[in-house]
Amino acid sequence: MHIYRRNIFYYETDRMQVVHHSNYIRWMEEARIACLDALGVCYAELEAKGIISPVLSVECHYRSMSRFGETFRVETKLTEVTRVSYSLSYRIYDDATGELRADGTSSHCFINEKGRPISLAKKEPELYERVCRAVEPES
Amino acid sequence: MHIYRRNIFYYETDRMQVVHHSNYIRWMEEARIACLDALGVCYAELEAKGIISPVLSVECHYRSMSRFGETFRVETKLTEVTRVSYSLSYRIYDDATGELRADGTSSHCFINEKGRPISLAKKEPELYERVCRAVEPES
Amino acid sequence: MHIYRRNIFYYETDRMQVVHHSNYIRWMEEARIACLDALGVCYAELEAKGIISPVLSVECHYRSMSRFGETFRVETKLTEVTRVSYSLSYRIYDDATGELRADGTSSHCFINEKGRPISLAKKEPELYERVCRAVEPES
Amino acid sequence: MHIYRRNIFYYETDRMQVVHHSNYIRWMEEARIACLDALGVCYAELEAKGIISPVLSVECHYRSMSRFGETFRVETKLTEVTRVSYSLSYRIYDDATGELRADGTSSHCFINEKGRPISLAKKEPELYERVCRAVEPES
Repeated sequence: MHIYRRNIFYYETDRMQVVHHSNYIRWMEEARIACLDALGVCYAELEAKGIISPVLSVECHYRSMSRFGETFRVETKLTEVTRVSYSLSYRIYDDATGELRADGTSSHCFINEKGRPISLAKKEPELYERVCRAVEPES
Repeated sequence: MHIYRRNIFYYETDRMQVVHHSNYIRWMEEARIACLDALGVCYAELEAKGIISPVLSVECHYRSMSRFGETFRVETKLTEVTRVSYSLSYRIYDDATGELRADGTSSHCFINEKGRPISLAKKEPELYERVCRAVEPES
Repeated sequence: MHIYRRNIFYYETDRMQVVHHSNYIRWMEEARIACLDALGVCYAELEAKGIISPVLSVECHYRSMSRFGETFRVETKLTEVTRVSYSLSYRIYDDATGELRADGTSSHCFINEKGRPISLAKKEPELYERVCRAVEPES
Repeated sequence: MHIYRRNIFYYETDRMQVVHHSNYIRWMEEARIACLDALGVCYAELEAKGIISPVLSVECHYRSMSRFGETFRVETKLTEVTRVSYSLSYRIYDDATGELRADGTSSHCFINEKGRPISLAKKEPELYERVCRAVEPES
């Protein structure tokens, strides 16, 4: 499990005086990139090699509201890796109180710059192995 | 079914040269508000009356990529209404070609300004009836 | 002068219950692209030809606050065009009341895909002439 | 001078493959809030007391382009404080190379929840003094 934390930005709130729900999807991306980075997979380098990893689907369940002034914490798990795709689950908490803010999932594939699906296992076997070893199936 | 259309903004794209996936969640909100408006439910007025309608969950499946220069079209259906909640489904297309870009759902409840769940059926029976009549169950 | 209008989106507001100031900078971009389009300069096509037009500077003065439920109107003027750059001024109004929300300026250059400055006059003389004829010096 | 640093997020880039210019305005806000915080002025608390500090104007000059994978650093100076307003200047750098990305300014006033201008000097004399002592006039 990887942990990602940061302060909430003022511009992330909306007129309901809480964080706009679309920003949780962005936080999940921030957490995913930090999680991959912690596994030694530098997202910017991956793209520099022509390996792109778009989102196939996202899902988010909102449990309580986040406010400006708070720090959020995302607990990210890599739940599945195949040769051509991977999935993650996220639990977002208020860092101070531990209150669950949201939980969600995302799934991703690998494509090249022409948009064709590629196998990470073939292209980057060493990276692929490392990512595979990090998988924690959803309990 | 309600139809919502607009041009894609430059700032909605990312370095993959396509629209960032989080923006589809925002488009779903734009479409939801336009859809409610077409049913005579003005979201700004609703909030002025102290009826707030936060997002409980969202889900989005990305099918193809959107680019700057395109116009997108969202087809929105109200799929379920209860006294305290409602759900919608969305299909997002490239308006020119009809290619499916994404499909998704969102669910919402009604709360008052203190964050307590409220019954739209009780608070605004006339609105509630109108919204109920617009329901189109998912086929 | 070019006129651009649209509804304010919910997610453009912040916890102050008004539109976040950074979004005016985005509205200026939307208006600029619509303004160029009205002059027959399609921004997406320009980029497809390898002509990129980054922002050199922006400035915005906030005069009154915009709220969800309102429609804004941007009046855009092309105030200066040289062979390698151009500037615009913007006045943003509440469309219903005509109240001035903000006014600002932006300036831009032309570069190629390697980031080198290019002359629009040389690369696209016909476009350049058209844009020049549209200049309205600031009064 | 206050220093604020963070990684660039993927969703902050645009199809030009660099950070969209509107995000620098948001970075200036992040830096301003961190700068005030370092002076013992907690923005969330200020708002909880009914003291709101909207933006009167912003200005930004873009010097070079920021990319995903980089860390930016904002050097923020409080350049002027009056009883009812304050101004800041910002210099944004690539943290690794020290290359200047942008420089800008913002000015702000204080209002109450009804939108009326208020004097920080009167409302929060102790805070006001602290902020005054932090002023570094632009050289």
